Amino acid sequence: MIAYKNDIEDPVERNTLSSVNNFPNSEKHYAMGTRDDIRVPMRIVTQSDSHKDFGGGKNPSISLYDTSGPYSDPSYKIDLNNGLPLLRKPWIKERDGIERIDRGQNNGSCRGKKGNNITQLHYAKKGIITPEMEFVAIRENQNIDNLNDSNLLDQHSGNSFGAHIPSKITPEFVRDEIAGGRAIIPSNVNHPELEPMIIGRNFLVKINANIGNSIVTSSISKEVEKLVWAIHWGADTVMDLSTGKHIHQTREWIIRNSPVPIGTVPIYQALEKVNGDPTKLSWEIFRDTLIEQAEQGVDYFTIHAGVLLRYIPLTVNRVTGIVSRGGSIMAKWCLTHHTENFLYTHFEDICEIMKIYDISFSLGDGLRPGSIADANDAAQFSELKTLGKLTKTAWKHDVQVMIEGPGHVPMQLIKENMDKELNDCFEAPFYTLGPLTTDIAPGYDHITSSIGAAMIGWYGCAMLCYVTPKEHLGLPNKDDVRKGVLAYKIAAHAADLAKGHPGAQIRDNALSKARFEFRWNDQFNLSLDPECAREYHDETLPKESSKVAHFCSMCGPKFCSMSITQDIRDYARQHGITDYNDAMLSGMKEKAGEFAELSL
Amino acid sequence: MIAYKNDIEDPVERNTLSSVNNFPNSEKHYAMGTRDDIRVPMRIVTQSDSHKDFGGGKNPSISLYDTSGPYSDPSYKIDLNNGLPLLRKPWIKERDGIERIDRGQNNGSCRGKKGNNITQLHYAKKGIITPEMEFVAIRENQNIDNLNDSNLLDQHSGNSFGAHIPSKITPEFVRDEIAGGRAIIPSNVNHPELEPMIIGRNFLVKINANIGNSIVTSSISKEVEKLVWAIHWGADTVMDLSTGKHIHQTREWIIRNSPVPIGTVPIYQALEKVNGDPTKLSWEIFRDTLIEQAEQGVDYFTIHAGVLLRYIPLTVNRVTGIVSRGGSIMAKWCLTHHTENFLYTHFEDICEIMKIYDISFSLGDGLRPGSIADANDAAQFSELKTLGKLTKTAWKHDVQVMIEGPGHVPMQLIKENMDKELNDCFEAPFYTLGPLTTDIAPGYDHITSSIGAAMIGWYGCAMLCYVTPKEHLGLPNKDDVRKGVLAYKIAAHAADLAKGHPGAQIRDNALSKARFEFRWNDQFNLSLDPECAREYHDETLPKESSKVAHFCSMCGPKFCSMSITQDIRDYARQHGITDYNDAMLSGMKEKAGEFAELSL
Repeated sequence: MIAYKNDIEDPVERNTLSSVNNFPNSEKHYAMGTRDDIRVPMRIVTQSDSHKDFGGGKNPSISLYDTSGPYSDPSYKIDLNNGLPLLRKPWIKERDGIERIDRGQNNGSCRGKKGNNITQLHYAKKGIITPEMEFVAIRENQNIDNLNDSNLLDQHSGNSFGAHIPSKITPEFVRDEIAGGRAIIPSNVNHPELEPMIIGRNFLVKINANIGNSIVTSSISKEVEKLVWAIHWGADTVMDLSTGKHIHQTREWIIRNSPVPIGTVPIYQALEKVNGDPTKLSWEIFRDTLIEQAEQGVDYFTIHAGVLLRYIPLTVNRVTGIVSRGGSIMAKWCLTHHTENFLYTHFEDICEIMKIYDISFSLGDGLRPGSIADANDAAQFSELKTLGKLTKTAWKHDVQVMIEGPGHVPMQLIKENMDKELNDCFEAPFYTLGPLTTDIAPGYDHITSSIGAAMIGWYGCAMLCYVTPKEHLGLPNKDDVRKGVLAYKIAAHAADLAKGHPGAQIRDNALSKARFEFRWNDQFNLSLDPECAREYHDETLPKESSKVAHFCSMCGPKFCSMSITQDIRDYARQHGITDYNDAMLSGMKEKAGEFAELSL
Repeated sequence: MIAYKNDIEDPVERNTLSSVNNFPNSEKHYAMGTRDDIRVPMRIVTQSDSHKDFGGGKNPSISLYDTSGPYSDPSYKIDLNNGLPLLRKPWIKERDGIERIDRGQNNGSCRGKKGNNITQLHYAKKGIITPEMEFVAIRENQNIDNLNDSNLLDQHSGNSFGAHIPSKITPEFVRDEIAGGRAIIPSNVNHPELEPMIIGRNFLVKINANIGNSIVTSSISKEVEKLVWAIHWGADTVMDLSTGKHIHQTREWIIRNSPVPIGTVPIYQALEKVNGDPTKLSWEIFRDTLIEQAEQGVDYFTIHAGVLLRYIPLTVNRVTGIVSRGGSIMAKWCLTHHTENFLYTHFEDICEIMKIYDISFSLGDGLRPGSIADANDAAQFSELKTLGKLTKTAWKHDVQVMIEGPGHVPMQLIKENMDKELNDCFEAPFYTLGPLTTDIAPGYDHITSSIGAAMIGWYGCAMLCYVTPKEHLGLPNKDDVRKGVLAYKIAAHAADLAKGHPGAQIRDNALSKARFEFRWNDQFNLSLDPECAREYHDETLPKESSKVAHFCSMCGPKFCSMSITQDIRDYARQHGITDYNDAMLSGMKEKAGEFAELSL
């Protein structure tokens, strides 16, 4: 483990996390794998019984995918100075060909020995199932576990646009998806704290939350707090995009305390090392930055290797030019030196580094459109083709790859993005920022983009990078992180439903049943944000007695459509009416008087 | 005009509207029609000049569709006691066959004389262009007016799924769309305050905001305030769904002060008249309620005439049964009396009433799905078929019709809703509630539903009924109204872009250009919610000087991708590079040294 300095500026206090608590009526649970140290976290929400008006009966506990890490385990004592438990340490230790590095500060780091490839892709191609693969297989099945005999399993058939999601995810399936390049498990050997997760279109749609300071805002403690907050609400991965002070230390605190994969854009830190002047960048500075971050444990790197010199003029007539920070840094470097992008010319050197730490590529879309006007243009799609070429190169080195995508795209042009990516990048997982479906709503871009995100998730996008309400206006604070994550949990879940991901509808069914039966607390507890749902309800009906009331403030106690429906249902049940049936109806006709008498 | 009582409980004070101001840098403007009293409101946003770093130059004023009514006209003195000016009074007076009604309180009301049909549909079928039709034609063209020579007009081609949107909306086109039943202008002759608007899939996508009290919440003044607030943010129509006290008076205040069409669900008030017991309802009570509301000036009625006795058993096995309030009222009535729905059996009587006031049908989807599980089921689609049959009946009477739609629908099942509606209801405009694309996010249902709303708007839905964050939890307050309207303005605009509505992209292009050029104030002013955008920006950079700064808090002053792009652009311009061109690039190669020298 990395030694922690106590003299770091702005230490993170235990109490900064006081607002992160577990969810109501939820228990942390671990599903066990084939070995004792494969313990897959989940959150089990228990429900109350149905009221006798609704037939009584028990309601099943619902198992939910849990991204929150040990923070939500009551037996775990949070200690940010020591970091999280080293879940993966034995798995990494067991691997052949790993060596420890002794380089002062990073004296706990390791890497593959020269000539050894230690990536998940490498093992998968050899037919090996790693503990990480087994872990994610168990994790992906939580939707359907425990509910095999429940009617909550009923769901619509989806339209998965050619994705193939099995009814049960096996470790073998995970291995084959990784071997085929269709999925990745970002998992640097120097991030043993990681609870593995998988990104691929034949798995649950994932979301990423960006955090990180800039020169004008934030501090280390705020960033660690945002990390814990983001995973509490459901972020599957977190990118640290810090560009301000203490980049190295901020990242160290984040990685040591993160149970989710951490991504970075290494060129940002490289730029700081040359005092913010892109023209002073060089391969050597970048390489050293990569190794520094690799040894810290970053799980995936955004690398803008597709911004080629010849593509830059394609952006000249755009409305918003190059909006990617990494893209514009490389464009400036290329033009100034009139030399091809060193990330491109040194791509195989980068692969050599990434394969000995098992860091995944997130091939950056430096020429992504920054406005509706610039969507799907020659600059964007030329770069995408190059990213496809680079994917093949990375795969030659057994380095895992995902592809970054836009940006600002109107709805009618979204599917083309997905289709081209699958074709040009050989089904490597797609990872998009939104896309935003209009430019006119700064302050609400979590919404403009959740529309596009839900759609592209449905079409096959594997991970959705959140956009917060502050997009285009400032860096997100803690509340913006919550809003962004929530909007993207919605988009990802809507996509899982639309694709027909097995068991995806269980939570909707359970919540809707609770809603119908006026089990208010169950409705809140099963929702993405129980705290908010409860708060909104309590604005008009704050009393605890209202939580069992068979009405709400919309219609008031005198009249309720839900309870009328129940009357109808009771009547039907009493008279054996189960479905549309004319014979039954004529029977009902005779009993109309009786029905009136019951004075429903 | 209706006489106002001063003794009404809870009078609306002028100062309750103090928070509703005009938008920044915006001027109220009226486009004139062929006659002096056709004055079509619009909002003109003026922009600042581009900074010399961005080539300098003027930026065009942008004309925006304006729903806010006289409230945003500085020359208009708000007087809620007197109501709005009677814009349509001369138009209505000119019509043949209108008679005044003297029935005590409603002594200012009028209607078509016996045997006279005075609906827009009736006139359209006869080839007549009414002032209302000319008004909406001018109103719909605002996107492209004033900008014929601007490069902001460039936009992607849309995919309109068979809708046919002309490049210029003429009064003749409006007339023909109405005559064909593909569009409606809800415009009761007793709502002379109305600024006409059109609902149809060959026009801009519209949004509706629901307001109204319940027995446990709100007051008249709060509801009027919500009305003014909703149209300030952009609601095209407003439904008053009051179910609490003073239903008649609340509606009176709302209509007299509303420049947008007001819709209601008359069965709600009828139910109040029988003390909330659905079984006590009768055709006579309902008819009297219809006439009462018709004389007040309600522009469209939601009528749940498609809830047929034989469809009710189809809901028995649903997860959430019947969630429509109107639907469950009628279901209970039908079952109790074992008689067919009186709204269905008296449908032609209803048409006879509606045609003499020119009230439009909003045929209610009483059996809409209330959960993902219940989407697109037999109950829902059986009712839709009946609504189509009723549409034909209404058209026989020249009564305008739109069709209400769901509800809760996962993404992959949304298009089927639109396709079936167009087919089964003969292209009558569709008006949907969302749809919500998942059930699991109470507190965020403006987002779950804006995803579905944007998609169905793209597929051809003419009007989107908003959902607020309080859906399923309580009645919306003023802040919820704003959030709901904003989410739906986004969905509607995203749909207009995707359909390729002429000129829809102008606002995006203008805002993005302003964003790129660091014209912060222009970016805020052109946005859907300038106040929010400014507030978020100012959280980190509050100084007025930051509004002209060429950076923001995301990257700080040292580095900015936007300004790098401008460097690249300047360089390209100086060297005559306008597009992808290998010859140019080789030219650039020679000048690489020079470029470095310029020290971009």
